[in-house]
Order: sequence, then C-alpha cells, then structure tokens
Amino acid sequence: MTEKAVETVQELFAQIIDLSRETPGQNRAVYSANWVAAQGLVIKFALAHGLQVMVDDFGTVYADLPGQTSSQVVATGSHIDTVTDGGRYDGLYGVLGGLQAVLNLQKDAARLQHTVRLISFSEEEGSRFPTTFTGSKHYIKADQDLDLTDENGVSFAAAKQEAVAKLQAITGVNRGIPAVPACFTELHIEQGPRLELAHAQIGLVTAICGQRRFTIQVHGNANHAGTTPMDQRQDALLAAAELIGKLHSLAGEVSDQLTFTVGQLNVLPNTVNVIPGQVNFTVDCHHDDEATLDHYEQLLRQQVEQLGQRAGFHTEIERWAHDLPTHLDSQLLAANRKLAQKLGLSQLELASGAGHDSEIMSRVTPTTMIFVPSIGGVSHAPAENTSEADLQAGVALLTASLQNLAF
Amino acid sequence: MTEKAVETVQELFAQIIDLSRETPGQNRAVYSANWVAAQGLVIKFALAHGLQVMVDDFGTVYADLPGQTSSQVVATGSHIDTVTDGGRYDGLYGVLGGLQAVLNLQKDAARLQHTVRLISFSEEEGSRFPTTFTGSKHYIKADQDLDLTDENGVSFAAAKQEAVAKLQAITGVNRGIPAVPACFTELHIEQGPRLELAHAQIGLVTAICGQRRFTIQVHGNANHAGTTPMDQRQDALLAAAELIGKLHSLAGEVSDQLTFTVGQLNVLPNTVNVIPGQVNFTVDCHHDDEATLDHYEQLLRQQVEQLGQRAGFHTEIERWAHDLPTHLDSQLLAANRKLAQKLGLSQLELASGAGHDSEIMSRVTPTTMIFVPSIGGVSHAPAENTSEADLQAGVALLTASLQNLAF
Repeated sequence: MTEKAVETVQELFAQIIDLSRETPGQNRAVYSANWVAAQGLVIKFALAHGLQVMVDDFGTVYADLPGQTSSQVVATGSHIDTVTDGGRYDGLYGVLGGLQAVLNLQKDAARLQHTVRLISFSEEEGSRFPTTFTGSKHYIKADQDLDLTDENGVSFAAAKQEAVAKLQAITGVNRGIPAVPACFTELHIEQGPRLELAHAQIGLVTAICGQRRFTIQVHGNANHAGTTPMDQRQDALLAAAELIGKLHSLAGEVSDQLTFTVGQLNVLPNTVNVIPGQVNFTVDCHHDDEATLDHYEQLLRQQVEQLGQRAGFHTEIERWAHDLPTHLDSQLLAANRKLAQKLGLSQLELASGAGHDSEIMSRVTPTTMIFVPSIGGVSHAPAENTSEADLQAGVALLTASLQNLAF
Repeated sequence: MTEKAVETVQELFAQIIDLSRETPGQNRAVYSANWVAAQGLVIKFALAHGLQVMVDDFGTVYADLPGQTSSQVVATGSHIDTVTDGGRYDGLYGVLGGLQAVLNLQKDAARLQHTVRLISFSEEEGSRFPTTFTGSKHYIKADQDLDLTDENGVSFAAAKQEAVAKLQAITGVNRGIPAVPACFTELHIEQGPRLELAHAQIGLVTAICGQRRFTIQVHGNANHAGTTPMDQRQDALLAAAELIGKLHSLAGEVSDQLTFTVGQLNVLPNTVNVIPGQVNFTVDCHHDDEATLDHYEQLLRQQVEQLGQRAGFHTEIERWAHDLPTHLDSQLLAANRKLAQKLGLSQLELASGAGHDSEIMSRVTPTTMIFVPSIGGVSHAPAENTSEADLQAGVALLTASLQNLAF
C-alpha cells in the first residue's frame, strides 16, 4: 500500500475501493489485509482532519469531533466489512457519509454543543466467521460466543488480535472503548427496490424486520435412474420441489410483505443417473410483525411434517436463526421527516428487510436509520449502485440531522 | 496381495470382493490397482483351470474353452469395473457366473462342438473417465474418442498402458484380440425391482432402453433475500422447482414406462440470504421406444422455452446423450424361455432401463441378456444384493443356454 495525502472523503472512498481491485467485487472480510488497510485509511484520514480517534479491542474505530459545552455524544456510522465480492456502498457509505457529515459540522465547530462521533464498526456481515454484528455487539457489551474459526481454521481471537494490534499501533490512536452515545443514526443504502419504485430519495426506517432461518432435510431413497419404475420411487428432489412451491404459495397467502427465500439447496448424491436420496435446503423469512412470522412458521412446520409422513419419506426441520423485529426510535424519525421536508427531499417510511448495526444499537440508545435508493434494488453484488445525487442527498440529511441533535 | 491357490469360483469371488475391504462399497475403477488385481485373479484362475487366456490392449480378458469340431465361438461375459462404492454383483456376477458356466461345460468337454468364451470386459461404467463401454467398444472396433483424463489429470492412454502391461505380462497369457463371436449372452443383475415385484427368478431382456440426457439452465436474478419484495423477484430456484414438477407430470402423461430423473441440481450462488440467480439441473430419460422419447423431448423443450420467455428469465437446454433403444435377439430369447421353463424357473420378459455391454455387442452379433432379481431394486450401492438361490438360478440357465448353443 503506497501512502499518499488524502484531502477529501471522495479520495478516501476511491482508495478503499481500490484495495479490492483484483477481485470482481469489494472484499474486506473482517481482520483481512484489506480490512486492516481500510480501517487504517479511515483512522489516518480522521487524525489528519483533527478528529480524536479511539480503536477498541474488536477493531471498531471511533472518530470524535468534541463538543464545546457537553460530554453527551451524538453518534453516526456503519460497518467497514463486506460480504464476499460485495458492492461499493453497503456499510462503507454509512462510514464515509458519516465522516463527511462530521467534517461538514467541523466548519461550524464553535457552535457544537455535544460531541459528534463517527463509528466504523469492525464487522456486521458474518462473511468470514459464522456470526454477525460482532462490532456493534462488542460496543454495547452484548454476550457473544466467539469460539469460532474461519474456513481456513483461523480462530476469531487470533485473527482479531493480529489485525487490531496494527490499528492500535498507529500514532495518535487511543486504545479503548468509549461510553454509549445519547443517540445513533445509521446512513445506509436500501439494498432493495422500494425507494426507486416509489421515486423517493430518502427512506426513513420505522423498524428492522424479524428474521427466521430454517434448514429442512427431505430424505427419500437413492436408486438407479434407469431401472427404477416411476411408481416405485421416493425421489427426494421431486418431493422437495413440490414442498418449496407449496411453502412459497403459503407465504404469499399469509402476507405479501413476508419474504420467503430458499437460497441454498443441496442434493445427495447429486449424480445424473441416481434418483436423489436426500435434499437439504434453507428457508429464510423476514417480516416486521412477530405474530405473522409465528403463524407462517406453524404452517411451514405442518407442511414439512406432512411430507415426512408419506411412505418412504422422512423429514427434519431445524430453526437456527430467530431475530425479533426491532422498532426504531419514532422521535428521531419524526425529526428527520421534518428536516427532509425542509431540504426538499422526497421520502418514504419503510421497514428494513435486512439486519443492520442499528438493530444492536437500538437496544441501548435511541436509534434511527436513513436509507438512500439502490439502483434496481441490487445489493451484495458488484453491480450495487446509487446515483451521485441520492448519495449526496443522504449525506445532506445526515448532516442536518446531526446538527439538529448536536448544536 | 498374497497369492493363494483358488479352487472354486466362490473363493475367487471372495478374493475379488476383499480387494475393496477398505471402502464402503466395491471399487474397481478401470486401470486402478484394484482393477489390475481383479483381472489378474480372473486370468490366473482361468489358466489354472485349463482355459486359454488372451488379453487385448484395453485389458479385456478372453478365456476360451476350445470346441472339438468348430472354430465358431459362443461367448458370455460382462464387465469387471464398478461405479464408485458400488455393489458386489453389478458386472462381476456376469463375469464369474459366466466363468462358472464355462467350468460346468468343461466337465463334458468331449461333447463341446464350438468354442465357449468368457469375456471380462475392461470397462463399462464410465466412473473414472468421462466415457462408457470402452471395453466392448474396443472389441467390436467402434470409433472412440479417448483423448480423456481422469479427475487427477491422468490420461486414459497412460493409465491403460501401465495397467494392461501388467496383465499381458502374466505367464501363459496371449496378447491379442480374438474375432467377434457367433453370439453373446450377458448374465446380469436387474438393478431394478421389477423381477422381485413380479416374483420372477429370471428376466429375459427384450431390449435395452434408449436414453437421453439433458442439462437445463434457468437464469433469474440473484438479489438480497431480505430486502427484495416478493413481486420484484426472478427466483431461479422457484422457477426450476415448478418446471421440474411440470416435466415430471408430463413424463407420466406420455408413458408410465418413461423414466424421468433430475439427478443433479446446482444452485448459484447457493447462499442462505441470496435469492438464487441460476439453477442448473440434469434430466435423464429412458424408454424402449424412440418415438416416445422424441415426443417427450419435444414437450420438455416447449416447457423450457416457455419459462425462458417469462420477464427476467432466460433458459438454456443442451442434450448431451442420445442412445437409441436396442432390440436384442428374439431367437436367443425364445431359446432361453424354453430352457427356463424346462428348469422350472419363473420368468418375466422386460426391457432393461440401464445400458449394458450387450447394447454394444448386439451391433455385431446376435445378443441376449439374462437378469436375476435385485433385492429391493437396489444397485450402484453397497446394499446391492441378490439371493443365493437366484444367483444359482441365473448360472444354471446360462449353463443350459451355452450348452444348447455350443454342444
């Protein structure tokens, strides 16, 4: 990495994006070389612009613009890590948009009553270790079981120690973890198409959807594809295909806001001339109402059990994720609604289908989110994009919001 | 491999089975160490019992009991190789059952007019190199493109040369390829449940089904599972599941004898929280009537095209295998029918859903097959089994059949 002076947040963005130049998308898995480089760039930029920088033992970066008259903290931020071959804006937009907003306030720092804090959380995506939100969970001191290894057998603890030491060794960085802020605002891309479809520039997030994930196993009988008559088969894939169609229909009957996705499906033995003996697949559901998710889970379990009762078949179901819907702060949202109107920005209130650090932060402090549109709703992919005008509108609203809270 | 004197075909069978003692099933992939050992055991047994042994340059073993008055050859046999973790009888039953039948005739060799030949074909399963029936195809001088490598990058030619040299070096073995026989009979397990369901001890094979294999690609749009509304999705897996159900129904409407199997299905990116952007799956169909297969293929292509015309979807279909139905010799079958009646064996005439060396042999000489029941229809798996009584019945009929043809 060649070091050079960086004047603007735009240049910082370009430097961080360039770290992933050798892969189709953005790759900053937590504690990887790219991750260390990116957080290091954020730290050096913040220090160079006169912010006070602290790095905690999970590698989350806190960059403070101190208030003149109060120790209360108004915070913003998002996560620096990415999914594998992710897009340019997921997480990073909230970190650098937040940094831009803090710099915007710096011009008028004499009027700043409370401290304004930019947070670049270490990890949110769960793309390296089988856990998510470790950065914000560490900040709020939530219980975490982190006896985990990545797919190469590297432990979370070892990866963390090596990477974080490099950040804490940067001259000017304080090692430590600051107190929880008085409020938290996260700027983020929508990652869905609803703002674009509604021609809205800004999304104000009412809630973060609850989410449940299941793994379903369908066991039939593997056998020779050429010699087994059709009426003598227990074809696990045919049965799974029918079940998936039925579960999809039921989801639509329960609520058109209920998302239903079979993202992963594996066939055993997966050979052209063998009738599938087993199919394992995942079901992922999101909705902002817990009772709706309860109702759907009941229907889903009924269908899986019914298939398991067919002669020659056996089914299993495991629920391995159950995140409750989170309602974000209505006062912060109402204030942002007024500010957006004042700025002439069209807006839509919506629930977030994806999870965010805000879900964790809302457990300890009033929290709100500002969304900007994702072109074509694309996210978690190299094609993820937002128009320059919308990116700027989000930062403008965040700046106004932080000013409103901190001045 | 410790060498010891082998008196009976039962002992030879036990020795060959024991070669795979360290794996769940039988493993004699062509030109592997186990394959060399197995063909070597067959050769030594045949030589020890006074048969004339020739090995061709593909490693097929020919063991002749010479006729007294004619150079005409009556042949039987099957293949020595296996699928990965295969059963004990697929292929090997026809080799050793044939060897037993030849030994049975040896007791009365003075009355033997024609030469009787046992053939242990080098390869039929296609489990190591992406090709099948290389042994019988070499024997009948069929064109073969064998510029192939196995999954470790070993070429067919190199593997063949090293393995076959070991067999041809055995003292008493002639190197060469004998003329095509006057007729060929293959003894084999059914590999399906029809004989067992019909309570028949013997199957007389009228034809070998035609087979077509396709790969179908369904392209939709990968996207975030939590943030993409249900009515904004092009979910490739939901579409593929529906298509598979439809193709299965259509197969049943066309003919209840048409087998339809989706054995292999792969999802991309196959991640729990990403809507599948692409699904690739195989379709394997067998039927003994080419016009029926033509008709079904037409319906299948229509369905795939229809899906490809849905907004946001794109489909591709490739047919990569097209084997015509093969009608076996009706005179040889009629003779076996009478012999089975004489022996008091219950019998069923049926088409073979699986391919066999007989399909290749029938191109150059009158060919017939004798099936024995597979318990539960299980094959290509360690649980493959046939009762001792049925194994003996098959050898008894083969002995009678060879005697009828050669005396």
